[in-house]
Amino acid sequence: MADYRTSSLKSPIDVAEYLFTRLQQIGVESIHGVPGDYNLVALDYISKLGLKWVGNVNELNAGYAADGYARVKGMSAIITTFGVGELSALNAIAGAYSEHVPVVHIVGCPSTASQKDGMLLHHTLGNGNFNVFADMSQNISCCLEKLNDASTVASQIDHALQQCWVQSRPVYLMIPTDIVQKKVEGGRLKTPIDLHYPGNDPDREDYVVQVVLKYLLAAKNPIILVDACAVRHRVLEEVHDLVNKTNLPVFVTPMGKSAVNETHENYGGVYAGDGSQLAVKERVEASDLILTIGAIKSDFNTSGFTYKTSQLNTIDFHSTYIAVKYSEYPGVHMRGVLRKVIDTIDPSKLSAIPGPKIHNEIKANDDGTQTITQAWFWPKVGSYLKDNDIVITETGTANFGIWETKFPAGVTAISQVLWGSIGYSVGACQGAALATRDSGLNRRTILFVGDGSFQLTAQEVSTMIRLGLKPTIFVICNDGFTIERFIHGMNADYNDIANWHFKDLVKVFGAKDGSYKTFQIKTKDEVNKLFVDPEFNAANCLQFVELYLPKEDAPRALKLTAEASATRNAQQ
Amino acid sequence: MADYRTSSLKSPIDVAEYLFTRLQQIGVESIHGVPGDYNLVALDYISKLGLKWVGNVNELNAGYAADGYARVKGMSAIITTFGVGELSALNAIAGAYSEHVPVVHIVGCPSTASQKDGMLLHHTLGNGNFNVFADMSQNISCCLEKLNDASTVASQIDHALQQCWVQSRPVYLMIPTDIVQKKVEGGRLKTPIDLHYPGNDPDREDYVVQVVLKYLLAAKNPIILVDACAVRHRVLEEVHDLVNKTNLPVFVTPMGKSAVNETHENYGGVYAGDGSQLAVKERVEASDLILTIGAIKSDFNTSGFTYKTSQLNTIDFHSTYIAVKYSEYPGVHMRGVLRKVIDTIDPSKLSAIPGPKIHNEIKANDDGTQTITQAWFWPKVGSYLKDNDIVITETGTANFGIWETKFPAGVTAISQVLWGSIGYSVGACQGAALATRDSGLNRRTILFVGDGSFQLTAQEVSTMIRLGLKPTIFVICNDGFTIERFIHGMNADYNDIANWHFKDLVKVFGAKDGSYKTFQIKTKDEVNKLFVDPEFNAANCLQFVELYLPKEDAPRALKLTAEASATRNAQQ
Ligand SMILES: Cc1ncc(C[n+]2csc(CCOP(=O)(O)OP(=O)(O)O)c2C)c(N)n1
Ligand SMILES: Cc1ncc(C[n+]2csc(CCOP(=O)(O)OP(=O)(O)O)c2C)c(N)n1
Ligand SMILES: [Mg+2]
Ligand SMILES: [Mg+2]
Repeated sequence: MADYRTSSLKSPIDVAEYLFTRLQQIGVESIHGVPGDYNLVALDYISKLGLKWVGNVNELNAGYAADGYARVKGMSAIITTFGVGELSALNAIAGAYSEHVPVVHIVGCPSTASQKDGMLLHHTLGNGNFNVFADMSQNISCCLEKLNDASTVASQIDHALQQCWVQSRPVYLMIPTDIVQKKVEGGRLKTPIDLHYPGNDPDREDYVVQVVLKYLLAAKNPIILVDACAVRHRVLEEVHDLVNKTNLPVFVTPMGKSAVNETHENYGGVYAGDGSQLAVKERVEASDLILTIGAIKSDFNTSGFTYKTSQLNTIDFHSTYIAVKYSEYPGVHMRGVLRKVIDTIDPSKLSAIPGPKIHNEIKANDDGTQTITQAWFWPKVGSYLKDNDIVITETGTANFGIWETKFPAGVTAISQVLWGSIGYSVGACQGAALATRDSGLNRRTILFVGDGSFQLTAQEVSTMIRLGLKPTIFVICNDGFTIERFIHGMNADYNDIANWHFKDLVKVFGAKDGSYKTFQIKTKDEVNKLFVDPEFNAANCLQFVELYLPKEDAPRALKLTAEASATRNAQQ
Repeated sequence: MADYRTSSLKSPIDVAEYLFTRLQQIGVESIHGVPGDYNLVALDYISKLGLKWVGNVNELNAGYAADGYARVKGMSAIITTFGVGELSALNAIAGAYSEHVPVVHIVGCPSTASQKDGMLLHHTLGNGNFNVFADMSQNISCCLEKLNDASTVASQIDHALQQCWVQSRPVYLMIPTDIVQKKVEGGRLKTPIDLHYPGNDPDREDYVVQVVLKYLLAAKNPIILVDACAVRHRVLEEVHDLVNKTNLPVFVTPMGKSAVNETHENYGGVYAGDGSQLAVKERVEASDLILTIGAIKSDFNTSGFTYKTSQLNTIDFHSTYIAVKYSEYPGVHMRGVLRKVIDTIDPSKLSAIPGPKIHNEIKANDDGTQTITQAWFWPKVGSYLKDNDIVITETGTANFGIWETKFPAGVTAISQVLWGSIGYSVGACQGAALATRDSGLNRRTILFVGDGSFQLTAQEVSTMIRLGLKPTIFVICNDGFTIERFIHGMNADYNDIANWHFKDLVKVFGAKDGSYKTFQIKTKDEVNKLFVDPEFNAANCLQFVELYLPKEDAPRALKLTAEASATRNAQQ
């Protein structure tokens, strides 16, 4: 039955074509997800439009992969099927919401007619309620659109994608099977979606800028502390311009790691309260004005809330407000404020006293044995990394250990310090590796994942193989959940895991002989050799490293954070 | 700080001990789940009480496993951690809700103090909202309790477990870390939770019984059709008593398969509309009175809504109402009505005319080639099955194929015909195998899973290995998503999957040589040999069979259902 409105369209195109073209325009070149009968017809459009279908092994992994893809390429999309598919992806979507990552979640659902009739279909709860799953996504999406009416679909899609980008958070699109091929006006596609950030109210912004400048010019030891939302809300150019113009020392938090060029002479290291290197801790905590940019002061980002800084010495720049000491300025985005501060500040008027040169060197921590310790390994990784590497670390010893790794320029670090869902990093690695290939850059993609975490999502390695991606994967083999052991149950059996022959998975998952390499690394000498091996460094194929560390060994910051968590959990 | 109320308790015990003891009393002997810092302290109680901790590889698999465990042992429990853990399990819990399976979902969450203070903790959305995840479980739980107050915890737990059992659906318990070791009255444990079903209102029940009897006695060709809720709401004894007393023919639906002893002389086969064997279809559709027991007339349970029966010839028995033709009797449970019908009916007064003998034999469908076809394989499986086997089939060719398998007595069939989440069966297999071991029976647990579905949750095989379980696993290798191909995209690349060496996974997942067997089966002769092999039949170790079938081959009923789905999806 032709749609009566179709006749009034100048260049009618199908809804699915419209949606995927919009995604393509924003830079999404590969679509993650898993097929299901409620989304199959939509999937036909992907290859038709020259996009690539990933075809993940399951929906949770697909969600993680989409998150990783978005962190490298700016935005991503995942398609799942009604109920069974979308619910499997919820944890990943919630993670993207928590960590401010723009992921478009498209859910293929039963036809509008079936919904209206309350049909007893597969993938329903059997109660005729077709809204219950969308409702579950409501609080983990910054925009949710049900595409039930062809006459509004195009603007709903544009609005959702715009929100996804601007708010840097997931959006949810529910598309019934009968809408996929409905017609919308193709002419709209000639005008790209407006992705400009709405500017601040000028008077309000000027006011805040004056307040910031007043304190900044007066401060004797101001420093800049860069955190996650500086990355996610895309103000890294402003950050670097501010550092260069003011010549202030700049630090990052664990979640902000890689936001700042760590080879910059003003870069001072990672600040996370008591978990920081001593020199960093002293320098930051002695500051009389800390400009935090995009802060998320969560427990794991602050070694268990151990900042010894005062709000009286702090200016917080956020995407939705600015806080100067205890004064809050809601509705003001940091981008405009930072830019205006940079543009108007006269560096010669700063009262800042040059502090001692920041060393920004990390100790080698060699203990003279061949055991690969956490303390020794992570600083060592710094020597192996190259400019522009993508470095993914899993929740566990890895994402605490990486604090002690000094990055070359241009590195992108990916981790889930706030959400902390284990297994995330394996999916994210697939997404990140694909994203860099899609952008024609082929940066090295390097994953550090715990043996426990790896098991949750291991099969996504098979997607990497199928797509011909070439990440380097380090599985930290330390007999189970070490991070949990330090929180509770050092020797409890629930912190043990099954004994897998990790590296043999690559072949089982279908990698052809010669298309991959595996390694088993148990000594410092072996690490040293591996890290200077030109072939290994070239990373011309998928590389999989079993890396053995002691079971009861953890980075210092992890131990502090774990102890704080255990105490807080028990607190009556 | 001691709780001030503790002093008034006669035999104080910890909340976690209370909870796990209650579960133990109901027959839950193993606890599924994945650790996380918000549940670790609670986990200590599991081994202390002589319960077993499963320690699944991820939370979705744990949820599926709990579902399988409950279907065999009556009830089950899964523990996850706040946010990341619980959301990963949601799809499995929704499945249990949809399919009426009693699973207790226990979520360890941040302390009441942290929640009150709105702390910025890991595993939160970063917005201080600690209720958002529980809210997401609201519509997929029949009872949701937040255990925030020691003085009410014990009765909250009792209420939830009682509801779980009686409604045969998941319940959600959210337990903050600081409540785990709070004291409750241990004396309560001496009185078991009342799991009796509330009886029907006697007058109402009598009325319905009279109406049922009136039509039943008058009918010439009455038959009984048994469906899923007869199993889940535990009226199989009533079903068999009714069959024996009335001597009526009895059929099952796909979701009701294994509800009836298929060696019973009154058993006629599987009715699912046009997907049924012709003789079954004719017999059922010629009936002038169909007593459906626990019906769920969903698309996949009816070959795409192809019942040719009339509501005017139907009496539906449900757990919440009875429908006689178009008259509905809400609030009446089938159990009481069925029992009273059995007790009061005088079989000599039935007007039923003895029909032709039901053959209940399934054709061998031998085509003279060595190719293992779907049509040939499933009837053949009947010869391999033994009394009391547990047979699990995955959504795909497997759970349609099994319609054509005649079961020996005492078989339990497990499948998700309504919810249909692929990957389910692998987790369910772990849970079912453990459940039968926990009950001291060690029934053979046999899984048929598609190659595509298997990949979603493959790692749960490692849990089976770690626990020393001995299922027999058939992976149907047919190059991808055959069921989807028949719905849409027969040759589309999105219906392809990665090429795994499936059977080699067993070793990689840690199985010791000699503790397992693997097979690759590609011809009818090989199947025939395997099915009569005494060692294979003894199933004394984990057995893993790669079974090769053609890519474009599907059971007849699947093709019909797929076509109906495709049509409905496209319907404008
Ligand atoms: C989905 C999910 N389930 C459970 C947890 C709880 N958890 C946090 S870290 C961790 C163990 C990680 O172990 P592993 O990856 O081996 O890391 P390492 O030994 O290096 O610390 C667990 C179980 C979680 N964060 N996310
Ligand atoms: C979690 C989930 N994701 C996606 C789907 C959609 N789906 C239904 S069946 C199926 C393919 C199953 O393929 P396979 O297991 O190989 O079965 P077979 O080839 O025997 O039909 C898919 C992708 C689903 N039902 N559940
Ligand atoms: Mg580990
Ligand atoms: Mg298949």
